[in-house]
Amino acid sequence: MGVKSEWTRRIYEKKLVENMKFALKAQSLKPAAIVRARGRIYVKTPAATETAHALTRVFGISSLSPATQTTSELADVTQTALETAEAAIAENATFAVRCHRVGTHTYSSPEVCRMLGEQILEHFVQRNLKVNLTDPDVTLTVEIRDKEAYIYAETYPAQGGFPLGTQAKTVCLLSGGMDSPVACWLTMKRGSPQVPVYIDNAPYTDEATRQKALETGKKLKEWSTGHMNRIYVVPNGENIRLIQQNTPARFTCLLCKRLMYRIAEHVADKEKAFGIVTGEAIGEQASQTMHNLCAIDEAATRYPIHRPLLGFDKLETEAIARKIGTYQASTAKTQGCSAAPSMPATQAKLAAVKEAEAKLDVAAMAEAAFAKAEVLAL
Amino acid sequence: MGVKSEWTRRIYEKKLVENMKFALKAQSLKPAAIVRARGRIYVKTPAATETAHALTRVFGISSLSPATQTTSELADVTQTALETAEAAIAENATFAVRCHRVGTHTYSSPEVCRMLGEQILEHFVQRNLKVNLTDPDVTLTVEIRDKEAYIYAETYPAQGGFPLGTQAKTVCLLSGGMDSPVACWLTMKRGSPQVPVYIDNAPYTDEATRQKALETGKKLKEWSTGHMNRIYVVPNGENIRLIQQNTPARFTCLLCKRLMYRIAEHVADKEKAFGIVTGEAIGEQASQTMHNLCAIDEAATRYPIHRPLLGFDKLETEAIARKIGTYQASTAKTQGCSAAPSMPATQAKLAAVKEAEAKLDVAAMAEAAFAKAEVLAL
Repeated sequence: MGVKSEWTRRIYEKKLVENMKFALKAQSLKPAAIVRARGRIYVKTPAATETAHALTRVFGISSLSPATQTTSELADVTQTALETAEAAIAENATFAVRCHRVGTHTYSSPEVCRMLGEQILEHFVQRNLKVNLTDPDVTLTVEIRDKEAYIYAETYPAQGGFPLGTQAKTVCLLSGGMDSPVACWLTMKRGSPQVPVYIDNAPYTDEATRQKALETGKKLKEWSTGHMNRIYVVPNGENIRLIQQNTPARFTCLLCKRLMYRIAEHVADKEKAFGIVTGEAIGEQASQTMHNLCAIDEAATRYPIHRPLLGFDKLETEAIARKIGTYQASTAKTQGCSAAPSMPATQAKLAAVKEAEAKLDVAAMAEAAFAKAEVLAL
Repeated sequence: MGVKSEWTRRIYEKKLVENMKFALKAQSLKPAAIVRARGRIYVKTPAATETAHALTRVFGISSLSPATQTTSELADVTQTALETAEAAIAENATFAVRCHRVGTHTYSSPEVCRMLGEQILEHFVQRNLKVNLTDPDVTLTVEIRDKEAYIYAETYPAQGGFPLGTQAKTVCLLSGGMDSPVACWLTMKRGSPQVPVYIDNAPYTDEATRQKALETGKKLKEWSTGHMNRIYVVPNGENIRLIQQNTPARFTCLLCKRLMYRIAEHVADKEKAFGIVTGEAIGEQASQTMHNLCAIDEAATRYPIHRPLLGFDKLETEAIARKIGTYQASTAKTQGCSAAPSMPATQAKLAAVKEAEAKLDVAAMAEAAFAKAEVLAL
């Protein structure tokens, strides 16, 4: 973790270990011990590979290596290295040995590398292996820490970011579409637990849209190591009816969005959250042009609107949606919102939008919707 | 470009062609013609490769293929395909032929693929080539459009996004650090021209920091196809002195940030911009915790604060900084800000920050700083 102070690092690592324990328990994996030391976390377990896989979903981990532990005695290191090499280095492959050493030993790191390289070549002579220090097929790493040694040949990339729970909570508007779950996930990745909110525009949107929002919420929960359990579902159809009756059609989506922000502010108050996350990206939809973001942002006065996808292209968002498992749920067929006008404003002026909005009692509308919010288990 | 309506697409493509002309002129490249057709743009030029490279920096282009044009007569297609294959397919390589066809012809697309595949195998029999349709080393593509055909074997990825100038202008706070130029670039990528602003905290920051901000501005200009020429430099040292004299040290950075937003709002007014872009990322610095973002965001009341890096890890930001050429300038050695306290608040409450701020006439401070702004050519 890119954390500057030692003090912050300790707090973050403690939270990380908590989240790791949660993730392992969810997979019925029971490590013998979890030990923090020098920017690394050692999970002692007989099921190293399964454990590593289970932990790829824990934010704050940048990579995982299932390793075999032995003593720092050269004979033990050699034997374990040969066993690891036997499983990891296939016929005709190239390999390198790397060694990191902390403590006082009778050997140096370069000596260990050279010796193990020679031993592996000799021991597996029938495999026709070659040493390649610049771009090897397999890197065998030996980490020696005082009286212990860890030997591994595989590293799985994880998500990076910060442990969930090290940042303040935020409310996330989940729409049932592809973008908002990705925005939610990116915010979780940086440590902020999410409170998902689905604004239900029925009868202008269909039940399938609602199902998609709930489904993506469930998928996000799988990343949450216990930090996400519920979703707010807030009925907004009556408000859309009022918007349609009292304001110009070209502003319908902008006024609806402004209302969504206000409803989200109520949820943030209730949940003691510190911001509102949306899947908005510049220019991705008519309501998301730079002009229109300026015309809607102003409606949120008490909390920042966070838009982690601002600079993303659709293909970049889609790639993350596929990786995190929300893609399928978010692309199921739905009817779209029947309240959306055929010619929405794309360069709305804030003053004009506020003038139209003055015909509505938006504070009362937001409160009325929030009062009818259901909180569902995910 | 992922643009929904035909009408919008036409406007965007027109702007894109303008920007392409600017980029080519800047490299002294003179295309014979630029033609828009069916979601593609054809640049007719004898210098196809140089032209393609020059256009990789134009936002709104997803990829570029230097192609050879010929007629849709099968003999011409075959001859050009063989010439392209000769240069593109090396000994022992695998290849595939793909064909896209629009119009009426005496042959079908699968027939063209099969025929060209056989011809290439036969013609370059000494090269020991193999056809591989699923994962070829080289893909030879034939695009047939009525009476014309385009044949290419190379595709360069470009930046995607939207043409610069299709979204409203925004003000970007450039700090001299690594993050803000990347945030600025991502916003440009989505079509929004940027007005960079450097808030100069001298004497609390050094001249090297100012130079870094100007230098990154110059690098960003290279991506701007004529949409960025100037940077605002706003002296803020006197304001920091007032903050230090009148408010608790733990809030210095937060109050300074709030003031920066207010100064940026003045620039946005003057420039008729529609938002403020910053390089803030959740948890990246003490002033950027989720709590603190909530405590500073509120200072900007007239424009949204856009933070495209919210969900980025440092390594992800660094990778973009390297790609876009701002990394080196932004990592030069500087002194850091001497006004930053050793124990900054990391979970500031908005109410407490506002109470501290009430000791200052922040509106007058922002105005005084803006009045002394210099506008420098980039």
